[in-house]
Amino acid sequence: MTIQIYNTLTRQKEEFVPLNQGHVGMYVCGPTVYGNSHIGHAKSYVSFDVMVRYLRYCGYKVLYIQNITDVGHLTDDADEGEDKLVKQARIDRVHPMQIAELMTRSYFEDMDALNVLRPDISPRASGHIIEQIEIIRKLVKNGFAYETGGSVYFDVTKFPSYGKLSGRTLDESLEGTRVGTRSEKRHSADFALWKKAEGGHIMRWPSPWGEGFPGWHIECSAMSMKYLGESFDIHGGGMDNQFPHHECEIAQSEAATGKPFVKYWIHNNLVTVNGRKMSKSLGNFITLKDAFKKFDPVVVRFLILQSHYRSTLDLSDDSLLGAKIGLEKLFNTIRNVRETIKKTDQDQHAGQPAIDFSAYKNRFLEAMSDDFNTPQAVAVIFDLAREANQLLHAESMPGMETLLALNALFSELGGMILGIVTNDLSSTARDENDEAKLIDILVQTRQKAKSEKAWWAADFIRTELEAAGIRLEDKKDGTIWRKIDS
Amino acid sequence: MTIQIYNTLTRQKEEFVPLNQGHVGMYVCGPTVYGNSHIGHAKSYVSFDVMVRYLRYCGYKVLYIQNITDVGHLTDDADEGEDKLVKQARIDRVHPMQIAELMTRSYFEDMDALNVLRPDISPRASGHIIEQIEIIRKLVKNGFAYETGGSVYFDVTKFPSYGKLSGRTLDESLEGTRVGTRSEKRHSADFALWKKAEGGHIMRWPSPWGEGFPGWHIECSAMSMKYLGESFDIHGGGMDNQFPHHECEIAQSEAATGKPFVKYWIHNNLVTVNGRKMSKSLGNFITLKDAFKKFDPVVVRFLILQSHYRSTLDLSDDSLLGAKIGLEKLFNTIRNVRETIKKTDQDQHAGQPAIDFSAYKNRFLEAMSDDFNTPQAVAVIFDLAREANQLLHAESMPGMETLLALNALFSELGGMILGIVTNDLSSTARDENDEAKLIDILVQTRQKAKSEKAWWAADFIRTELEAAGIRLEDKKDGTIWRKIDS
Repeated sequence: MTIQIYNTLTRQKEEFVPLNQGHVGMYVCGPTVYGNSHIGHAKSYVSFDVMVRYLRYCGYKVLYIQNITDVGHLTDDADEGEDKLVKQARIDRVHPMQIAELMTRSYFEDMDALNVLRPDISPRASGHIIEQIEIIRKLVKNGFAYETGGSVYFDVTKFPSYGKLSGRTLDESLEGTRVGTRSEKRHSADFALWKKAEGGHIMRWPSPWGEGFPGWHIECSAMSMKYLGESFDIHGGGMDNQFPHHECEIAQSEAATGKPFVKYWIHNNLVTVNGRKMSKSLGNFITLKDAFKKFDPVVVRFLILQSHYRSTLDLSDDSLLGAKIGLEKLFNTIRNVRETIKKTDQDQHAGQPAIDFSAYKNRFLEAMSDDFNTPQAVAVIFDLAREANQLLHAESMPGMETLLALNALFSELGGMILGIVTNDLSSTARDENDEAKLIDILVQTRQKAKSEKAWWAADFIRTELEAAGIRLEDKKDGTIWRKIDS
Repeated sequence: MTIQIYNTLTRQKEEFVPLNQGHVGMYVCGPTVYGNSHIGHAKSYVSFDVMVRYLRYCGYKVLYIQNITDVGHLTDDADEGEDKLVKQARIDRVHPMQIAELMTRSYFEDMDALNVLRPDISPRASGHIIEQIEIIRKLVKNGFAYETGGSVYFDVTKFPSYGKLSGRTLDESLEGTRVGTRSEKRHSADFALWKKAEGGHIMRWPSPWGEGFPGWHIECSAMSMKYLGESFDIHGGGMDNQFPHHECEIAQSEAATGKPFVKYWIHNNLVTVNGRKMSKSLGNFITLKDAFKKFDPVVVRFLILQSHYRSTLDLSDDSLLGAKIGLEKLFNTIRNVRETIKKTDQDQHAGQPAIDFSAYKNRFLEAMSDDFNTPQAVAVIFDLAREANQLLHAESMPGMETLLALNALFSELGGMILGIVTNDLSSTARDENDEAKLIDILVQTRQKAKSEKAWWAADFIRTELEAAGIRLEDKKDGTIWRKIDS
């Protein structure tokens, strides 16, 4: 089965053929670490996480690089304003690198909670100043960039295909902005590669053009090409980064190397909150740490995967609650499959032929191979859960082989690929074990009480467990339990 | 109360007086991230963690920097051999930065488990190449260093006080090694600041002396001075780093700036295993991940603090078991104090005057102020626990104020400063809560069973809980429980 990927560069789905057979080099723009991550970060990094997982599942050896921006990202997201970290550091009265340290840690905490696999390398922009300077030096030497007053700018008129990613013509780009009277730029669409550091600027390094700091765009060119080579397979990022960030990356990289920079550009769509764009000024800005107070991280991950990465995701308490209810149903089914396996004799129904679930698997893989269509893939998982429930509640129990096949398929598709179905179906294995042991003692006590006709004890245990969020269900073969919504 | 610190530079305890009143700049050599951390790392970083905690407790604003060495540390710990990360990367067939990424993550996982607070900044050596080049450039310019064949060495004969930290005279240093016939060094004790990268060397950067990589020692000078200034208060590290690493740091830093580099040098002693030096060749090399399989991280931390940072710590299953038993006793006492608080009416024994525990606190602070004497500080905590036990088992219960004072003192001294006594006395708050709720249901069921004279149920619950590692103890006022050794 071939994988089709929507390539922003060509505006169509293309068959995925990596530059080096069996290997994938993939770069995704990471966070600017000046504040806690929000729900938009979750959408982006969960989406790319599932792509990495799926490519690996398909047998590709993926080298996944995601940077940490700790310098050069200015408050206006272009060439003007204050460095976002320096600004936050000034407010907190600490060194900018303390902000970077804290917020990088916070970011990975949130991503770990979302079960986003760590990138293979998370290079820091401030740790790759030399590499950035080297590219700029080459661009100046080859006439694509010019130095003025201690800063260096890329001359967009020297790179004719500028605009090929975003579809903007140079005229549009030039029209869109005006060269202020005090601007050092030759053309309004020119962008900064290196900025002169003014007197009090704390983030500064020596360079051939004097003390300064890199522009925002150049870091991604430097770090991606350092670890993946001058041409690589996949570059991802949020749709809002298409222009100017990625357009500038292409221009400076291809001008420096004379080679095509990236084969497939993938952009995820954005998050709205209750139908409106999320922004700090609208007051509907939701950090992940806040979201996790109300909803388990796996619910957030599940909600994200229920829509396609190229669709907007509308977030609301209702949509999260819907995801939670759906997920609980799915988890209950899988938990019951696993409980039944534990309680079933190895040889029970041994003669019974195993049911073949390969049709589900094929439909799932087809969905994933069609530009990573996770909502369809999730739908297949639910279809499988429906069949599982029918089997579990049928007159005669399914055989062991069927149960094991079911469980394995949930783990393979819902776990390995989607990152939703974990071994313990809860946040930590330890929790679950200690809890399960204690609940088991309560269930046994209750069983004993029933056989002694001590109904008061049986009722007391059921009622108290229910109050603690655990529901007992008496089945023919014994009692099973599940967590109920709190 | 003044703090006395043993300063390796002067070989005596000195009163601690920071360079800037109220502020402390502190740098500790961090790990070389080419493998999992071992028990020696734990001893070092737990020791310095307690120092940082204590200085902060005393009101100092501490800026704590601990580097990550991801380049330049060669296999012979001096100027020869292969880069440790490059070697590991070659074995694993990955990029060295993937090793750095994985092992940095592994390191912080282990430190988090040990309740070691994160440094304020964890700068990477590879992220500070420019800063290292700038110092080397200055040293060459001022005649302290010389370039030869694309490498740069520090000329120890130009720095007369070379040896002042380790107490080695230059003659001894020169005698200790011989200049091989093929060596580029002028003197055998000269050390590398910059090494030329041979053809296949992957970790390389452009420099005024051609493509190469920094020597091991220069990174710590560059990163400490970048974030703490040219002179700062405390530099820490393992005793094995006194020479050559720290000796070289002093020489290159003071030669470059003409100022004293560090006011207080603090060195922790090493770990032996069953009485023998820990080494990979002896097969007694214990990674933290392995140790944590057998013992809770808090036990490892506690064992470390039971000896002084300047003493060797001998590790064995027996010493860990001893620490575990001691810690469980302490935790049981504190747990009983907390349980009693929960069960005691706010107004009960209201008239009873609170007992004054300030003598314990003073003894504890005296111990800590005497060169961070944690074993004595731990002994005070145990004395306090003994008094707490006497009070809890006395004829008349202690009053609420006394109980609250006890609990606060355990948290302040054993928690905030030593990092042992946490709010939940277990690894995660969540665990404890879910568990406690379920155990409570079992205890209540048992109480009900007793009142119904259903002895079978009472016995069953007690036996099963005991098997699950939880012991019930019937007291006059009710039943309390505690975890027993597994």
